[in-house]
Amino acid sequence: MKIGRVSGNVVSTINHPFFDGRALMICDILDVDGEPDGYTIAVDTVGAGVGETVLIIDEGNSARQIFGLTTGPIRAVITGIIDSIDTV
Amino acid sequence: MKIGRVSGNVVSTINHPFFDGRALMICDILDVDGEPDGYTIAVDTVGAGVGETVLIIDEGNSARQIFGLTTGPIRAVITGIIDSIDTV
Amino acid sequence: MKIGRVSGNVVSTINHPFFDGRALMICDILDVDGEPDGYTIAVDTVGAGVGETVLIIDEGNSARQIFGLTTGPIRAVITGIIDSIDTV
Amino acid sequence: MKIGRVSGNVVSTINHPFFDGRALMICDILDVDGEPDGYTIAVDTVGAGVGETVLIIDEGNSARQIFGLTTGPIRAVITGIIDSIDTV
Amino acid sequence: MKIGRVSGNVVSTINHPFFDGRALMICDILDVDGEPDGYTIAVDTVGAGVGETVLIIDEGNSARQIFGLTTGPIRAVITGIIDSIDTV
Repeated sequence: MKIGRVSGNVVSTINHPFFDGRALMICDILDVDGEPDGYTIAVDTVGAGVGETVLIIDEGNSARQIFGLTTGPIRAVITGIIDSIDTV
Repeated sequence: MKIGRVSGNVVSTINHPFFDGRALMICDILDVDGEPDGYTIAVDTVGAGVGETVLIIDEGNSARQIFGLTTGPIRAVITGIIDSIDTV
Repeated sequence: MKIGRVSGNVVSTINHPFFDGRALMICDILDVDGEPDGYTIAVDTVGAGVGETVLIIDEGNSARQIFGLTTGPIRAVITGIIDSIDTV
Repeated sequence: MKIGRVSGNVVSTINHPFFDGRALMICDILDVDGEPDGYTIAVDTVGAGVGETVLIIDEGNSARQIFGLTTGPIRAVITGIIDSIDTV
Repeated sequence: MKIGRVSGNVVSTINHPFFDGRALMICDILDVDGEPDGYTIAVDTVGAGVGETVLIIDEGNSARQIFGLTTGPIRAVITGIIDSIDTV
């Protein structure tokens, strides 16, 4: 799993029905110094807003299980909002 | 998931029967600044044309489920056309 | 699988229930020279502390099976503490 | 999926029985300009020869399904020979 | 799949029981020129020794199937010893 920061969202009207009513968030993937290093498009599950630091899981089965689905075209999800990061 | 832009297509006559009649699109993977950063070959599911910005899912189970299949040699699909990208 | 070193942990109160009571450790991924090269957030399964060298598996099914689960939003786990690394 | 070019093959006598009689091809992965950018070892399914441009799928379930198997230690396969690449 | 070269092994006494009695080998991943480019920790299945060139599969389901298991925290295995590499 990775630490990300929500930077925006994507609007897609022609899309698979799974995405109807689901927020597609653009998340910068953060490196260990908190700097952006790539991004992913993740479906929000916790009400994360732009600027928040989040936990991202990028794995299809995890993503489907969070939605209680066995099928669904999804791979990355925001699974948590990160309150603090404690490193030595 | 990633944001991509369709840049062309691949013609393959000697191929697995799954691909008969399916469009194999070359998609540039876009970075957060909208610049190409690698590519993937994805099967189209939404009628995306060259130059369009699309949502790409690169995961085998997602890809098969979009086609209603439990088997099938496929990993990347174009699952949506992106209308707009809103970032801070 | 990769060799990692635990560098800290992440606190996330708004999160999927799976993570309740589970330690989310920040692990530097080490290269062959033992230098950090990226990181992952992994769930601890062996009581690894900050500074310890660990074995990390980054695969959803492996991760779920360690917890005896068939579902669960998890991909990376610390599966062992490394005592020594012997290379030529 | 990726575009590759077959550059050679690997001979392995001590190996898992799955590979008995199967050609293990070395394939350069091509970037969007057709230049090599990494490689993979893929099992041939279409009779691809050295120098041919091919479609490569690097996903375990896809690979097993092409061989009609539910088990088998395989991840990357050559699934097609590419006749032409049309880009703007 | 990738070509690797065994460079050592990892000793881990506090670990998941799956790893009891199994050799955790450090394998340099080789590029097309035979130079090291990253590494992985793989479980040996063919008696590979330090310095040998090997075929590595890095996929959880493949890895479990080689051991005849449906569960098991494993992703990378050494599945063969490479005798020769023939490239143009």
